[in-house]
Amino acid sequence: MKITPISGFPEYLPAERIVEQHFLDVIRETFELHGYPSIETRAVEPVDRLLGKGGDADKEIYGITRLAGEEDPAAASDVELGLHFDLTVPFARYVLENAGRLTFPFRRHQVQKVWRGERPQEGRYREFTQADIDVVDVGELAPHFEAEMPLVVAEVFRKLPIGRMVIQVNNRKIPEGFYRGIGIGAHDATEIQTTLRTIDKLDKVGPEKVAAMLVEAGCTDEQARKCLALAAIRTEDLSFVDQVRALGVEHPVLDEGLETLAAVIRTGLENAPGAMVADLRIARGLDYYTGTVYETQLVGHESWGSFCSGGRYDSLASDGRTTYPGVGISIGVSRLLGLLLGQGLVGASRSTPACVLVAVNDEEGRADSTRVATAMRGRGIACEVAPKPAKFGKQIRYAERRGIPYVWFVGASAGGADQVKDIRSGEQVDADETRWSPPAEDLRPQVYRVAEGASGGEGGS
Amino acid sequence: MKITPISGFPEYLPAERIVEQHFLDVIRETFELHGYPSIETRAVEPVDRLLGKGGDADKEIYGITRLAGEEDPAAASDVELGLHFDLTVPFARYVLENAGRLTFPFRRHQVQKVWRGERPQEGRYREFTQADIDVVDVGELAPHFEAEMPLVVAEVFRKLPIGRMVIQVNNRKIPEGFYRGIGIGAHDATEIQTTLRTIDKLDKVGPEKVAAMLVEAGCTDEQARKCLALAAIRTEDLSFVDQVRALGVEHPVLDEGLETLAAVIRTGLENAPGAMVADLRIARGLDYYTGTVYETQLVGHESWGSFCSGGRYDSLASDGRTTYPGVGISIGVSRLLGLLLGQGLVGASRSTPACVLVAVNDEEGRADSTRVATAMRGRGIACEVAPKPAKFGKQIRYAERRGIPYVWFVGASAGGADQVKDIRSGEQVDADETRWSPPAEDLRPQVYRVAEGASGGEGGS
Repeated sequence: MKITPISGFPEYLPAERIVEQHFLDVIRETFELHGYPSIETRAVEPVDRLLGKGGDADKEIYGITRLAGEEDPAAASDVELGLHFDLTVPFARYVLENAGRLTFPFRRHQVQKVWRGERPQEGRYREFTQADIDVVDVGELAPHFEAEMPLVVAEVFRKLPIGRMVIQVNNRKIPEGFYRGIGIGAHDATEIQTTLRTIDKLDKVGPEKVAAMLVEAGCTDEQARKCLALAAIRTEDLSFVDQVRALGVEHPVLDEGLETLAAVIRTGLENAPGAMVADLRIARGLDYYTGTVYETQLVGHESWGSFCSGGRYDSLASDGRTTYPGVGISIGVSRLLGLLLGQGLVGASRSTPACVLVAVNDEEGRADSTRVATAMRGRGIACEVAPKPAKFGKQIRYAERRGIPYVWFVGASAGGADQVKDIRSGEQVDADETRWSPPAEDLRPQVYRVAEGASGGEGGS
Repeated sequence: MKITPISGFPEYLPAERIVEQHFLDVIRETFELHGYPSIETRAVEPVDRLLGKGGDADKEIYGITRLAGEEDPAAASDVELGLHFDLTVPFARYVLENAGRLTFPFRRHQVQKVWRGERPQEGRYREFTQADIDVVDVGELAPHFEAEMPLVVAEVFRKLPIGRMVIQVNNRKIPEGFYRGIGIGAHDATEIQTTLRTIDKLDKVGPEKVAAMLVEAGCTDEQARKCLALAAIRTEDLSFVDQVRALGVEHPVLDEGLETLAAVIRTGLENAPGAMVADLRIARGLDYYTGTVYETQLVGHESWGSFCSGGRYDSLASDGRTTYPGVGISIGVSRLLGLLLGQGLVGASRSTPACVLVAVNDEEGRADSTRVATAMRGRGIACEVAPKPAKFGKQIRYAERRGIPYVWFVGASAGGADQVKDIRSGEQVDADETRWSPPAEDLRPQVYRVAEGASGGEGGS
C-alpha cells in the first residue's frame, strides 16, 4: 500500500512536535495563571446542533458513521453525528448541559482539534488545533471581562518565540452607534450589518472600492466618507476617543462603545503595555458579536491575517428560560505553527526530551548504565540508555543525530569514576549521577525564534 | 433542542478534568524522562489501512464523510477515511511514511483520543484516550527494549494516586516452547495458537473448564495438566525459572523465552522493585505479539481487568523491503479514570487552577486588584479577580465554591497594606503581592487518592 500524506491533515516530525508542545504548554500555563480551568468536549455533536450555528461553517462538516452499522437495528436510532468544526458550539452545549453543576461566571479554556471538510485543493487545514478561552455568566455579563481576554492572550504572545503580536480591539457598538448617528439604518436596520460587512472588506479591496460599494448600497457620499474616516482610526493609547469625537457624530450607542473600548485599552496600557491597539476597522464577520471584538496581527507578517480572534456575544447559549452571555477569544495554533515552521522561523534545539545518553560499555554493563539513568530520572533529568555497546564514537554520534547534549560514561576515569561529556564542546569531567546536573538551559529542549532571513526555509509537512 | 449526553462519549466537569490533566501530565513527564519524544498523528487513516490490521477491531470503525461533499466533483476522488481506533496502526504508517527522516531505534510516545464504533447499548467508550510508548528499529530489535517498557509504566503508576498497580509479564516463547516440548503442535502448528487462546480464558471460565476445552481440542489429559501447571506459575522474583524447569519440559524456544523474561524481571527488581510479576498465564489475544507480553492489575480491583498492555511484535510495519520490529505498551487512560472517578476513588482539591481570588473593593478599585493579580501571575501564582465588588462575605463564598484557598484584600489593614486570608483557617495576614507566596501544596490543585470505603460514590459522567 503506497503511503502518501492526506492533504489538509498536517503531521509533525518529533522536533517540530517539540515546538508545538512548547506553544501548547505556554498557552495552557498562561490560561491557568489567569484562572481558566480546562475542559474538553467530545469530538462529535449532533449534526442538527452543528448546522444551527457558526455562520459560514455549515457547509464544511464531517459526518461520522459506523462502517459496520448498516445491518445493526440499534444504529437506525442513533443521532446523526458530526465532528465539531470549532470549540464554541460544543462549549455552548456543554454550558447548557451542565449549567446546574457549574459556578457562574464560568471561565474555561479548551485546547482541542477541530475538523472542517474543506475542499482539499484549497490547501486549507481540515484538522487543526484551536485554543480558546471564554467567560460566560447567567443573564448578564460584566463589561470588565471584555478587558480581561486580551490581557490573557497578550501574555501568551509575549511568552512565545514569535516576535511582536498586536491585538486589534474594537467594539461593535462604535460603528453601530456611529452609523446610526449619521442616519444609516434609520429606515432599515439591516443597513448597519451591510455597512459593517462592506467596511470589513477594506484590507482586501481598499478604501475607494469600499466607498463605491457603500454608495451603491444606498449611502450618501458624505456617509461613506465618514464611515471610512471612522475605520481609519487606529491608536495605541486612548486618543481614538478624541479622534472619533472630532468626526462630530453623536449617538448613545456610540458613547457606550467608546467607553467600553477605552476601558479595555486602559487595562491593556496598565497591564500589558504595547500589546493592544484600538483599531476601528475591525468588525468580525459573524453576526453574533455584540460588543468588543478582537483580531491580531503578527508585526512584519500582517498579510498572514489574524491568528487569534473573538469577541463578546450576548447569547452564547440559551435554553429558552435562561440566556448565557459571554466573551471569548480563540488562538489558531495550527495555522500559526504551520506558517512559522513552514518558513523556518522557529525551531527546537533537539528532537528528543533526553538530555543525557548513558553509554553502554558492553551488554553485561547495561544494568549499570540503566541504574545511572534511573537515578538521574529520579532527579528530573531525562535520559536514554544507548541501544548498543558500540564504539564510543558511534554512541556519541547516536546522541549527536538527536541533539542530545551530554553522553555519560560509566567508570570512565582513571580512578573508576563516571564521566560526562558535553559533546558540543568536547569537555569531559568526572561526575556522580546522584549530584550532577546540566545547566538549566540544557535540561529540556529549547524552542527558539529564528531571525528573519536566517532560515533555510525547511520545516513542517 | 433537548440536550442529553451521547452514550460512550464521556465528558468531565472542571474538577474531574483537573484529575485527568494530572494523570496525563504524569504520563507525559515520565515518558519524557525516559527519552520518548511525543508525536501526534492525524485522527483519520484510509479505511483500507484501518481494516488491514488490528484483529477484532475491524468491525468498529467510524467512517467520515463531508456532509456537503455529494455534489462536489473533487469529493469523488477522495480516499475513504475513517477515525483511528488505536494508536498502533497510525504509528506504523507514520514510521513507514517518515522512515527516511527518523533516526532508529526510534522511540516515541503518543497520547491521543481514539474512536470505536461500539454499539452504544454495551456501555463501552466510543471515544477514549490512550497513552502509548513504542520503540521500533530497522530489521532487528535488541531484547533489552522489552525490559525497558515496564520500567517506564511502573514509574507512571508509582507516581499516580491510584494504589498499587502490578505489571504482569510473560513471554510468548515460554508457552510456545513448552507446548512444543510436550508435543502440542507437532503435526499442526495452529494447535499452539488454539492452546494459547484457550489458556487465555482461565480468568473467565476457570481451570476445569479450560482443561476440558484443551482435551476437546486434542490434548491428552497429561498435556492439559501440564499447560495448566505452567499457567499457574506467578512469581515476583526469578524463581519462576526453577518452577518451569521442575515441570520437566525441554525445548530451545522455551529456553529463549525464559532467558528473556528473566532479564525483564531482573531489570524490574533492580530499578522498580515490587512493580512487576512474572505471570505465565498472560497470553494477549493478538497474533502479532512474538516475545514479551504485558498486562496490568490494580491490586484490590483485579476484576477491572488490565489498564495497560502491550508486547513485542516482529513486524509492526513493513514496506516490502524493510521490516520494523518493535515493542510497545499502551495505557488505557479513559477506562482507568472512568472507573476511579466513577467510584469516587480519586479527587481534586479544587475546580480551578486559581490559587488566589483578588477581591474588589469597588468597581473603581478593579484596576488595583488587576494590578495585584498581574504581579502575582508574573511570579507563577494563578489568580482570578473577583467578578463583582460584592460584600466581602459574598466574594469569599465565590472562592469557597471553587475551592480557591486564598482571598486577597487590597489595602485592608489599618495601615493600608494589603492582606491575604486563608479561607480554610480564617487566618488573615498583611501581604505584598511582590513577595507573598502560598505554601507549595496550595500553588496548584492537588489530586489525591480517596481511601476505599471513604467515598460517597459521586463522580464522572
